[in-house]
Amino acid sequence: MTAQEAVEHLSRLLKQTREQVPVPFTERDAERALAALLSTDNLWEAIRLSRVPLRALSTFWHRLIAEGLLEARDGALRLTANGQALAQALGVAPVREATCAHCEGRGVDWRTLPESVVERFMEICRHRPEAIQAYDQGFVTEATTLSRIAFAWHRGDLEGKTIIVLGDDDLMSIAAALTGAPARILAVDIDERLIQFINEVARREGLERLEAVRYDLREPLPSSWLRAFDTFMTDPTESFRGFKTTIERGLLALRGPGCAGYFGLTHVESSYEKWARIQRFLLDSGAVLTDLIDNFSAYVNWGYIESMRSWKWLPTHRLPERPWYYSALHRIELLRLPELDNTAVAGDIFSDEEAATT
Amino acid sequence: MTAQEAVEHLSRLLKQTREQVPVPFTERDAERALAALLSTDNLWEAIRLSRVPLRALSTFWHRLIAEGLLEARDGALRLTANGQALAQALGVAPVREATCAHCEGRGVDWRTLPESVVERFMEICRHRPEAIQAYDQGFVTEATTLSRIAFAWHRGDLEGKTIIVLGDDDLMSIAAALTGAPARILAVDIDERLIQFINEVARREGLERLEAVRYDLREPLPSSWLRAFDTFMTDPTESFRGFKTTIERGLLALRGPGCAGYFGLTHVESSYEKWARIQRFLLDSGAVLTDLIDNFSAYVNWGYIESMRSWKWLPTHRLPERPWYYSALHRIELLRLPELDNTAVAGDIFSDEEAATT
Repeated sequence: MTAQEAVEHLSRLLKQTREQVPVPFTERDAERALAALLSTDNLWEAIRLSRVPLRALSTFWHRLIAEGLLEARDGALRLTANGQALAQALGVAPVREATCAHCEGRGVDWRTLPESVVERFMEICRHRPEAIQAYDQGFVTEATTLSRIAFAWHRGDLEGKTIIVLGDDDLMSIAAALTGAPARILAVDIDERLIQFINEVARREGLERLEAVRYDLREPLPSSWLRAFDTFMTDPTESFRGFKTTIERGLLALRGPGCAGYFGLTHVESSYEKWARIQRFLLDSGAVLTDLIDNFSAYVNWGYIESMRSWKWLPTHRLPERPWYYSALHRIELLRLPELDNTAVAGDIFSDEEAATT
Repeated sequence: MTAQEAVEHLSRLLKQTREQVPVPFTERDAERALAALLSTDNLWEAIRLSRVPLRALSTFWHRLIAEGLLEARDGALRLTANGQALAQALGVAPVREATCAHCEGRGVDWRTLPESVVERFMEICRHRPEAIQAYDQGFVTEATTLSRIAFAWHRGDLEGKTIIVLGDDDLMSIAAALTGAPARILAVDIDERLIQFINEVARREGLERLEAVRYDLREPLPSSWLRAFDTFMTDPTESFRGFKTTIERGLLALRGPGCAGYFGLTHVESSYEKWARIQRFLLDSGAVLTDLIDNFSAYVNWGYIESMRSWKWLPTHRLPERPWYYSALHRIELLRLPELDNTAVAGDIFSDEEAATT
């Protein structure tokens, strides 16, 4: 196969994929998907390495299978000889990992936290509520939560600060409180189980500055939380509408310029087009992006994986054995007071065309 | 001192600082500066930890000194008892470092590169041209250059790709060529010494895909370089005009959507206000920010430090013993073809009100 033939073939595959899904899927996305398939035959690892929304990725896989370029069997994906020839003619190379093994690529080391914080947090997590689909839950590994807290402490967003955690199945509020550094921590969540769990831990562990309150993000922020916090932390649902609503609540909760916000964003459910749209929304809201560390957050596999929206898209099925759903840690800082409405939002905030897990 | 008195005192200090410098300086900047002074008495370490443009930071220091809150002597900065009381009343805490010691906070590990690449690069760097002020030079540590290359390789921006390096005192083109992965590497620089050095290394080391050509970024990009590369790498001068010109040349050199660019940006010479302005410019140019890793790049101290613009701003003088000037690694990816002019730029592109090193 000549390079020219390969480019034309890829171009047809792209056209067909785009006709089938209302999600951006670029030549570079296809290249990343092929690079991942050259690097692993594990379905979940291929998703992680592709950095492409799963909705488009799975459609592309089905196209490859239909053309005899890919085989899907027993949860494994293998490029056929023709598939490998196509990748080679396109000049695609396997992914060459360079991730730091010590910090898992985060750049911050949770082992810098006091040992007692780590030990108590790990013990508390043994009894945490299970993730449920109704609230688009799925929590991160303990190392991830601890790393986020170490990061925020490093950046001066923890010690002496008032913190609001918007949706806290990751138990960031507990890890933050265990450090003893923040002045006050409020965790809010729609899930009564989490509210009870966090308040029970606060009582049992003597964490007097930690409190959890039930709150539905679709409702306006209560006036006592407006401009009342130094830092917000959240891990939003990724439909653009749900994401925007969550971040707006966070921005409205901040006192003003110089206050910081933390959130995650994935490739599985968000294209780079959506990332760009979000970046513009943040700038328009008076925030600057100060840090963006991809694959910072690793999610523990949740129990409802076989009923998630994207399960039926997969060309072969096997439960994942290791984390495969990752998100990029974003830190923003306010440069001016945002001009945002604090109004109720009706209806479904979990779904958009790139959503995969709800 | 009550918290209220401290806030009022800080507010006066901020007002005075802002009157003296035409550079944004926020309450949070002042807080960061005080946190740094609580963490170290080393002038250069205080700059690194403050993450504030040096022009504003040094003015703030002079204000603190004038009010008996800070002592500057023999290259050391020490908060007085009154200064410490102010910081305490404001609730400012020392910086709590959480940086991964193994990768120095980069998240990527240059030790994943083949050993021979590392060894040959280190050896080549022993004879590199010295940094000179006329071109705003100042190169990064070998570990930094190697980490950038490991990062780009990981992200699929190296292997089989054509790469242009715009200004290459960091010798990224050489490190990239040593991996043998890229299809072609063009290094361009205004400095004839670097062109000769890179071409001589390419000849001696048998790096046939590497070439260096003299080029002044103020000139339009030659037509044969337009839309000809997959990846650009640069470490721009940080005046907004110089930065924008450099990145525009890089974007114009890219083939189109899916191509990637790498660049650095500091706190020493760029406020978060300028960062936000740059982020908007990138989005407007059709790019999305995919990674932003602060303090990724550490600069080797250059020989002209005593004649740099900011030397006379410092309240006490001592040569730095370790790296203190860092930049944040940014990776962008093109989502659409940028609409940019390829025209000549006249005059000084090195200076703006936040510039510190030229």
